[in-house]
Amino acid sequence: MMKTRRSDRLVDMTYYLLERPRTLVSLTYFANRYESAKSSISEDLSILKRTFQERGIGLLETVPGAAGGARFTPYMLKEEAAEFVSTLMNAIDDDTRVLPGGYVYLSDLLGQPWFLRCIGRLIATQYLREPIDAVMTAATKGVPVAQAVAEQLNVPFVIVRNDTKVTEGPTMSVNYVTGQSQRLEKMELSRRSLPMGSRVLIVDDFMKAGGTIRGMASLVKEFEGQVVGVAVVADGQVENRVVAKYTSLVHVNTDGEQGLIEVTPGNYATEVYSADTPVDLVHPETD
Amino acid sequence: MMKTRRSDRLVDMTYYLLERPRTLVSLTYFANRYESAKSSISEDLSILKRTFQERGIGLLETVPGAAGGARFTPYMLKEEAAEFVSTLMNAIDDDTRVLPGGYVYLSDLLGQPWFLRCIGRLIATQYLREPIDAVMTAATKGVPVAQAVAEQLNVPFVIVRNDTKVTEGPTMSVNYVTGQSQRLEKMELSRRSLPMGSRVLIVDDFMKAGGTIRGMASLVKEFEGQVVGVAVVADGQVENRVVAKYTSLVHVNTDGEQGLIEVTPGNYATEVYSADTPVDLVHPETD
Repeated sequence: MMKTRRSDRLVDMTYYLLERPRTLVSLTYFANRYESAKSSISEDLSILKRTFQERGIGLLETVPGAAGGARFTPYMLKEEAAEFVSTLMNAIDDDTRVLPGGYVYLSDLLGQPWFLRCIGRLIATQYLREPIDAVMTAATKGVPVAQAVAEQLNVPFVIVRNDTKVTEGPTMSVNYVTGQSQRLEKMELSRRSLPMGSRVLIVDDFMKAGGTIRGMASLVKEFEGQVVGVAVVADGQVENRVVAKYTSLVHVNTDGEQGLIEVTPGNYATEVYSADTPVDLVHPETD
Repeated sequence: MMKTRRSDRLVDMTYYLLERPRTLVSLTYFANRYESAKSSISEDLSILKRTFQERGIGLLETVPGAAGGARFTPYMLKEEAAEFVSTLMNAIDDDTRVLPGGYVYLSDLLGQPWFLRCIGRLIATQYLREPIDAVMTAATKGVPVAQAVAEQLNVPFVIVRNDTKVTEGPTMSVNYVTGQSQRLEKMELSRRSLPMGSRVLIVDDFMKAGGTIRGMASLVKEFEGQVVGVAVVADGQVENRVVAKYTSLVHVNTDGEQGLIEVTPGNYATEVYSADTPVDLVHPETD
């Protein structure tokens, strides 16, 4: 490959960094890839950094020096987040979504790449500064959410199951009590899917009392890991929540008998875009 | 937003188009977004087009004229595809992956964003010129593959289930015969997740005889749709395959008794990178 023009480098570097969130790419790598001087690459990176910031795409941290490089961490700024949560609320606020048992039909939304990408960016923003080794969820409906978040964090995701599948190999299992009906159930995770001692983010599509999430937390303990956080797309109305600390994008209240739904913002915004948030999320600097 | 510099536009346009595969973005939109003349935007787009092509990122088609715009379609070129399939083969070629019943443990790979992104790009390449309305898969292990492909095609994905979930609302169901054990089973799909008459791409992680895939095909018929294609990550060794036309990235042969595995390339490369493939996939033009 010949020495490249700045304009071509900018396009390819943007692609390259967007494909590898949270990964330090060395100046040397870019210098070789484009057969260009490190000083030119540094100038390119400052253009990317400025544009990523101005457009609310994410943080581009540059590590100076010979061993230095650049790391891209996607985020979603407060204003775009508020807009997206409002879009999500409008999409869910539809009485025909009410299902028996206080559940809400969300599968159409959680099958749309655009919604999932926004959900992933939003939840990843919350853990901007936190090291995370894996995202965990429960089969089946949590899977798209886990995958969307894992993509933005650039870490693997693992799927906990209620049904024993012969195709999973050796598993670790826990018994847990479902939140509302107080039934005893079992969930399990393939041994080889999660290294011992991992820092785990638990996500799900919908949380009622939180029994499944409490079960996943005890499974993380069996793997000698640590729960970094719990994030769900929607939480429902319940009397006794068994999970104390979590974030939700929207809160859903249903009246199953009347078939009515009421959607309000979840606790996400107040938990994330607060005073102790990295200031660049609330007031991006401008040149 | 002030009139922007070319360098900033190139970075943001790259981001904007990558986030919206297969979508025509109008020149007018970009001209307003950057407060720049359409002629400048056209020049920017030709830089993106050249770099996307040289770097094997994808096709940038520009539609000229006042109502024109640009459409980005991701693809993976032959050389990168061969490299990825070889990486995939090496990762799967591990005797400890052999599970009872001729199955193979793939969940760790199908939980890694990088693998999934490559799988998605590769399978989407195959349908570069085909209109597709939705991607369909079977719960649970096909879900990550479906999501990865749907992202690249920028269409929704739908999940067919074996177990009746109360949280899915009204469903359409079919009975089907499993490929090998010839058991009669039932699978179903939520009515509201797939519009009638859709053009559907069926994907899965692993195919043995293909009973599940045949079931999905008959479900597509119930929805008065059309199966555009069938693509799986891996296919196993069986005597009587019930699905005639499909592509697989790798072919896996296991000896369950001895616990041995043998991995060879699937039929993907010969089906896709052939003479009647769009020529730009095999021999990208250079400036």
